[in-house]
Amino acid sequence: MAELRRDPIVGRWVIVDKEHSCAPKDFKYEQYIPKGGTCPFCYGSEAMTPPEIDSIREPETAPNTPGWQVRVVSNKFPALQVEGELNRRPVGMYDMSSGIGAHEVLIETPYHAKDICDLLPREVENYLKMCCRRAIDLAKDKRFKYLMFFRNFGSAAGASLEHPHTQIIALPMVPKNALEEIHGAKSYYDYRERCIFCDIIRQEEQEKNRIILENKYFISFCPFVSRFPFEIWIMPKKHNGAFCFMTAEEIADLAVILKETIGKIKKVFANLSYNYIVHSAPINSDGEVEYYHWHIEFMPKLTQVAGFEWGTGFYIDPTSPEIAAKYLKEIKE
Amino acid sequence: MAELRRDPIVGRWVIVDKEHSCAPKDFKYEQYIPKGGTCPFCYGSEAMTPPEIDSIREPETAPNTPGWQVRVVSNKFPALQVEGELNRRPVGMYDMSSGIGAHEVLIETPYHAKDICDLLPREVENYLKMCCRRAIDLAKDKRFKYLMFFRNFGSAAGASLEHPHTQIIALPMVPKNALEEIHGAKSYYDYRERCIFCDIIRQEEQEKNRIILENKYFISFCPFVSRFPFEIWIMPKKHNGAFCFMTAEEIADLAVILKETIGKIKKVFANLSYNYIVHSAPINSDGEVEYYHWHIEFMPKLTQVAGFEWGTGFYIDPTSPEIAAKYLKEIKE
Repeated sequence: MAELRRDPIVGRWVIVDKEHSCAPKDFKYEQYIPKGGTCPFCYGSEAMTPPEIDSIREPETAPNTPGWQVRVVSNKFPALQVEGELNRRPVGMYDMSSGIGAHEVLIETPYHAKDICDLLPREVENYLKMCCRRAIDLAKDKRFKYLMFFRNFGSAAGASLEHPHTQIIALPMVPKNALEEIHGAKSYYDYRERCIFCDIIRQEEQEKNRIILENKYFISFCPFVSRFPFEIWIMPKKHNGAFCFMTAEEIADLAVILKETIGKIKKVFANLSYNYIVHSAPINSDGEVEYYHWHIEFMPKLTQVAGFEWGTGFYIDPTSPEIAAKYLKEIKE
Repeated sequence: MAELRRDPIVGRWVIVDKEHSCAPKDFKYEQYIPKGGTCPFCYGSEAMTPPEIDSIREPETAPNTPGWQVRVVSNKFPALQVEGELNRRPVGMYDMSSGIGAHEVLIETPYHAKDICDLLPREVENYLKMCCRRAIDLAKDKRFKYLMFFRNFGSAAGASLEHPHTQIIALPMVPKNALEEIHGAKSYYDYRERCIFCDIIRQEEQEKNRIILENKYFISFCPFVSRFPFEIWIMPKKHNGAFCFMTAEEIADLAVILKETIGKIKKVFANLSYNYIVHSAPINSDGEVEYYHWHIEFMPKLTQVAGFEWGTGFYIDPTSPEIAAKYLKEIKE
């Protein structure tokens, strides 16, 4: 019989098929092999993007020329605009505001076809450093309440450009899913006076059967209430609401665990498309930090999300996280 | 500039691109043309499915033989099982229960390649009557707290079988998204002492520019806070929490508006895949009915849902609902 599992943070129920869990070979997913061709994010194409906002580059190379290792530009087709007033207002019984925000693209590497797992640890560190730098800079704009860092990798994951990149969206309000996590974590904190994410780490370290990798500062595991087969969370062991204040040591540990975790899942599923999202505390607000704990949620594109999942927030996971973690743990990089 | 719009029911923010709204020709979607072949849901294949639970069929024809117009069977690969105890229990800090529930398939028509828009109004009425009958029957099992009726049509919408069918899942708990709608609707009711859905209908009838079709008992429109381009809601004008108590007159009106709405969108988008979900009040509970109002949410598969949407509950709609409704209204069936 399947199990119904309840997410302790947001209260979502998921059906986990523990008895007949699908093995990696059972998934028929769309494999992703970059085609190459003219690419605005490649070395030498710097003029094809909007001007550089920030970069990590060789000394004495000028912005918008080669020499960079990580590069941030405005999105050419931004979903939101930096200029203007928020102008929140009613429309009859509805509520709206102007599309104020920021939409940036972080080009992770000059190499068109290298995923994070193919980079050197030092290169991944530079990518993560730049994420932190952009978060700290964007938070200076007091109109912004939430920063979303997310990565669509591969066509099946919705990436419209092949070259590896992370998108950054600054929003003038906290999105619903973040609010739900925060409210859930707060309820738990109010009752137990402990961070729910810290307790999840304790529970995972006790049970051990869902852990994939661990180092001094980070842990990667398949969550007990995985919505998707082979879903993975990467979490800092030290309690911290926002990701952007990591120390150099923590960044180095995250670089290793991120690179190795992605390396492992791509050994299990060749040419996999996936998404990951950084879940971090709201910015320019106060008091969230004691009960919120930042983390990364990694979602491989192995199955199709249909009406059931959209309409209900109810997911069916055909591979139990215990079995998924076993496959991932056993794979050698 | 884009607009940020807030869903009055669940508080979800959506970015609507009003200035550069995509026209139907701008969408490159996966067209769906049924391939045919051996099908367990076709006339004469009755022995290939689990035994009939209910059907509407010619007088004097036996169950599990031809002669039916609508037929309900158990799902051959059910996500949940009817037999057993719920056995809700903790696992360390987590919470789980046995996978108790029901998972049925309603075969809508004997015709393999006929969508709802291709059926006669009387045939659609029979389909709807059977939905009501199954809802009333399943609600007798006091372990069930929520019934989900949903339809995946076409491969891009996640349908694993071509033959048109609706899935029914009975759950031992109310799923998160339903709870959110109910809580949002209750907050509104507590403040205004009016049903939020009734107010939405009033607002739409006043503005008129998002309405697609209307008859005595039903209205179909593109919601102000559409998550997806050409999203459509179909709502009863008369306040009612649960769909299963419709009168024959109401069923007749819903049959017409459902058939014609789907007919219109499939004229705009040939061979479209789509999902729809019936949102109805929880069962075997009390007191929800005054502030909850059942409705159907229809989601065409024109765009890909990526990490952004999953991870944040934040959507970008490239076609404003005002423009989508204009296209749909103008199309003649």
